[in-house]
Amino acid sequence: MCYTSRVAALRSNEGERLRHILERAARVICQQGFEATSMQEIAAACGLTKAGLYHHVKTKEALLLAIMHYGMDLFEELVIDRVSGIPDPLERLRATMARNVELVTQDSSKEVTIILHEHQTLTGDAQREINERKKRYVRFLEEALREAIERRLIRPVDPTLAAFSFLGVVLWTYKWYRPGGRLAPGELASGMTDLFFDGLLPR
Amino acid sequence: MCYTSRVAALRSNEGERLRHILERAARVICQQGFEATSMQEIAAACGLTKAGLYHHVKTKEALLLAIMHYGMDLFEELVIDRVSGIPDPLERLRATMARNVELVTQDSSKEVTIILHEHQTLTGDAQREINERKKRYVRFLEEALREAIERRLIRPVDPTLAAFSFLGVVLWTYKWYRPGGRLAPGELASGMTDLFFDGLLPR
Repeated sequence: MCYTSRVAALRSNEGERLRHILERAARVICQQGFEATSMQEIAAACGLTKAGLYHHVKTKEALLLAIMHYGMDLFEELVIDRVSGIPDPLERLRATMARNVELVTQDSSKEVTIILHEHQTLTGDAQREINERKKRYVRFLEEALREAIERRLIRPVDPTLAAFSFLGVVLWTYKWYRPGGRLAPGELASGMTDLFFDGLLPR
Repeated sequence: MCYTSRVAALRSNEGERLRHILERAARVICQQGFEATSMQEIAAACGLTKAGLYHHVKTKEALLLAIMHYGMDLFEELVIDRVSGIPDPLERLRATMARNVELVTQDSSKEVTIILHEHQTLTGDAQREINERKKRYVRFLEEALREAIERRLIRPVDPTLAAFSFLGVVLWTYKWYRPGGRLAPGELASGMTDLFFDGLLPR
């Protein structure tokens, strides 16, 4: 299924209601952590009774899975779909970093934060589903890196090591960045891209 | 208090027993998450009754705080104490990255993983205590970066942005690295240092 249409599917009436639940639930889980948050608190945050919440999601784990899919949908719509058509692999990588930093530093980052923080909370098939979508992003980066190496646009680094270093720079942001501080999201995006591609040493 | 002597203090008989508890507790919390782990499970992992465990630590939160201090002690003993005397700030930064990657990829990394993963679990004074020790590391990096910029050893980057990018590359490792894979800890340390300092682009 195309991820953009998955987000679009949430724009129907029932979809709109579910999206509202996922966003409210994400906010409270993001603040308190998944284990420490009860379905009662999530229902209250959504303006629903507990029975009303269970009408939409069968279990707390199913709710977490739905939030993570929604976060991956947002990520793919706002990052991947907008950069995957860039033919130059180096420009594609730069644009991916800039857009991903911006996503993590905006308010819509709460679903993404949950994907990152609760990386060992899901189990079984649910964990495999989300891990498969995450791995697709790692492969997307590795392929762009390989292509850039072949075209001698970048140095012959290990693509896996470079992909995870790229992700480290970008995704660690959720741990320390607070909006309204000295560095605006745009400055962070351009500063990190400059640093990662050009390195610390003078040229 | 000097952190090395804090670790040394754990080498007395009572200290040895406490260290054993912290390491066993860290292993089970690392696997299951703090909220999802009961004091009963921690006691069992330590070979103690629940009452026996409470003889050593008053509350579950106090146990988490003690594990985090122990993790910071290990980090400071194995990373900071061994690099802070290096006079060249660029060499100091490179050595810090290499040693920190090695720490995060070894088995002793479980206490460090808990510091990283449970970054919002503690509250009040306990959270402030640990955050103060973490901030000291960020300042250590920022100072080395400033010194390296002044001596024109590196480009004039934003020291805060560069310090957190450095930490992102190094600390994200706990999310994805599994021992026994294709990349050995030493290869990871040298590959990341090379990438972060020299950048992706050809020179």
